[in-house]
Amino acid sequence: MIRLSDLQRRIEKGELSPEAALAQSLAAIEAQEKTIGAFASRAERPRAQANGPLRGIAVGIKDIIDTAELPTEMGSAIYRGHRPRADAPVVMLLKQAGATIAGKTTTTAFAANDPTATLNPHNQAHTPGGSSSGSAAAVAAGMIPLALGTQTGGSVIRPASFCGVAAIKPSYRLLPTVGVKCFSWTLDTVGVFAAGVEDVARGLSAMTNRPELLATVSKAPSIGVVTQEFAGNPEKEGADALKIAAAAAEKAGASVRELKLPAIIADAWRIHTIVQQFEAHQAFAWEYRENYDAMPPLLRKRLDESQDISPADYDEARSVAEKARVVLADTFGEVDVLLALSAPGPAPKGLDWTGDPRFNRLWTLMGTPCVNVPATVAEGNLPIGVQVIADYGDDAKALAAARFLEAALRA
Amino acid sequence: MIRLSDLQRRIEKGELSPEAALAQSLAAIEAQEKTIGAFASRAERPRAQANGPLRGIAVGIKDIIDTAELPTEMGSAIYRGHRPRADAPVVMLLKQAGATIAGKTTTTAFAANDPTATLNPHNQAHTPGGSSSGSAAAVAAGMIPLALGTQTGGSVIRPASFCGVAAIKPSYRLLPTVGVKCFSWTLDTVGVFAAGVEDVARGLSAMTNRPELLATVSKAPSIGVVTQEFAGNPEKEGADALKIAAAAAEKAGASVRELKLPAIIADAWRIHTIVQQFEAHQAFAWEYRENYDAMPPLLRKRLDESQDISPADYDEARSVAEKARVVLADTFGEVDVLLALSAPGPAPKGLDWTGDPRFNRLWTLMGTPCVNVPATVAEGNLPIGVQVIADYGDDAKALAAARFLEAALRA
Repeated sequence: MIRLSDLQRRIEKGELSPEAALAQSLAAIEAQEKTIGAFASRAERPRAQANGPLRGIAVGIKDIIDTAELPTEMGSAIYRGHRPRADAPVVMLLKQAGATIAGKTTTTAFAANDPTATLNPHNQAHTPGGSSSGSAAAVAAGMIPLALGTQTGGSVIRPASFCGVAAIKPSYRLLPTVGVKCFSWTLDTVGVFAAGVEDVARGLSAMTNRPELLATVSKAPSIGVVTQEFAGNPEKEGADALKIAAAAAEKAGASVRELKLPAIIADAWRIHTIVQQFEAHQAFAWEYRENYDAMPPLLRKRLDESQDISPADYDEARSVAEKARVVLADTFGEVDVLLALSAPGPAPKGLDWTGDPRFNRLWTLMGTPCVNVPATVAEGNLPIGVQVIADYGDDAKALAAARFLEAALRA
Repeated sequence: MIRLSDLQRRIEKGELSPEAALAQSLAAIEAQEKTIGAFASRAERPRAQANGPLRGIAVGIKDIIDTAELPTEMGSAIYRGHRPRADAPVVMLLKQAGATIAGKTTTTAFAANDPTATLNPHNQAHTPGGSSSGSAAAVAAGMIPLALGTQTGGSVIRPASFCGVAAIKPSYRLLPTVGVKCFSWTLDTVGVFAAGVEDVARGLSAMTNRPELLATVSKAPSIGVVTQEFAGNPEKEGADALKIAAAAAEKAGASVRELKLPAIIADAWRIHTIVQQFEAHQAFAWEYRENYDAMPPLLRKRLDESQDISPADYDEARSVAEKARVVLADTFGEVDVLLALSAPGPAPKGLDWTGDPRFNRLWTLMGTPCVNVPATVAEGNLPIGVQVIADYGDDAKALAAARFLEAALRA
């Protein structure tokens, strides 16, 4: 993989020009893209900028995020050839930080369930996960050092886990979702993929102008391990990965204990779908009502099946979520961060299913920052990740603890 | 004015066809539009739908809200001829309820300060207010029975007050802002204009499928009058209007008392601008960075002057807002609703300034429902309104109390 931190250090020292750094990514894309299929479209003549912390950094933008200079097709025929007038704010944050947009990365249709043809770079018989399939695969294949994705259920953390890359789903609205195709306004969150946690931190820090995101831990963190039993059991390889990560953290000096989450948290996990589907019916109203036949079939089916959610159901679900957020905040009085699986196990075989978001949904609804750290590699060269979760707004703490865990796992 | 409730009742009874109801609006537009200038564009062959509670109802959509069949020009040359691919969810909610989109209503550029040429139907030498200038003026001039606007500071309630129409700025995100040009994602709120409060309630109820919004009070409400002294003094006509409204409510049986808001609320009022401008720099990044020369001059100046707001300033401001929301919710344990001025006084003379949002900002930041009720008419035939404010989520209570007050003021 191309490490953002390496490129930044070498550019900073004058060992590498921004043009040469960018050229390295463009050559890697040229070599890998035919096999992996991570891009929906590519910039015609990408140029390096001379200034900014991300000068020379080639970035992939999930194709549900508006770009003025490249199509934004949402993974759907309904938006074929669609060219937004403006760049989304997150794209402008990257450009203002000096980055170069290398292309748009593939997305499942409307960031829902209908898969892409993108392959998992670790094992091409397996899905890279979704919905941010192209962003995770492009970083994993060593094509680009930085990519943007979005998560409504588990669309950043799960593909990161399956592809063995680091990623953050930041606190709700740390990155604006303006100009990003909406699935659910209460849930949609823009996230960042990179090779390792430091690289993710550098990318997010440059975008947000928040140097505190680069901090490392001053002492080993206290960690609460949560198995999310309300979400069902993980696969054996998943359960092992969580144990291995917890043991590595403990060995490195962290205080680690299992934590049972209060019942209201399980309730919140259950109602995620109500919030998501109620809002999806409004967010996709134009596509569903005026382009029903052209709708991606899996998403259309989910919309067909969720027409009866009433405003009262939705209000009740939001009230459960609000209560759970308060209770969860109390939990972070007991430990610095939580540790949980990023997915039930390794990437499923085949390309017809991007995997199960059941271990991700809760944290998207809670709005808490989650960082995927690659933990183990299962049979078939398939990575498995764990997620470090901090309280809402504590993105710096989540990133610092994830860097601690990443180092512990390498030791 | 054309009353939505009248049209609905007559259509329901079979006295009026949806086609005839729509034709009435189209004829009124034909007669008035040349003078008032409330529309940015008009539907070519608008047709009535046969079904839905809003069949036969002609609606105006503020021109920062995406429409697939009409341009969406944001009041700015930067978006000249812009045609979004999809209708915004709020437009689809109207269509699904049976309404007909009559046209796009004028907006100050990007819903900020640079004014439109729209005239106040009550006195053509005065501004209709802004930023939802065309929506307020089109309803006030009797052209259409229903219109959508948006509020980030005071852009729904203020023009409603200046134009003598009813309007609601509902609870934050009761109506989705997806497909609405963003100014500030923490503040932007879609609102509804109509002739009277019942008409507003019927429009919002049909859009959201929430019959509870049609309720009236079962007993006279308890009302806390707030003068918002932290926002400065009103003009004499404004102060009088608030007194007259409070006295009318009391005479009709309401318990009315003056309420002092805690200091944290005044702090929240002060930091509204920090939240708004920090987010505006991201929301308008493409326009400001790539189209600086074509930017509307007043908005550009505000962006020029607010470049130094740091992420830490923003975080602190959001934390103040969060605390104030909790404290304000406690206040609603003491009274059913609050009563405050909708603007410092009547519409200012001239078209170069849409008036002062200082009595509106706080409530937009708090996310609470606000309903404008026309209260008095000042010299020059200029209306002055008051706003009825309920707790977050209590839109039904705000509307019911506003209907009570409206009836009391007519008695």
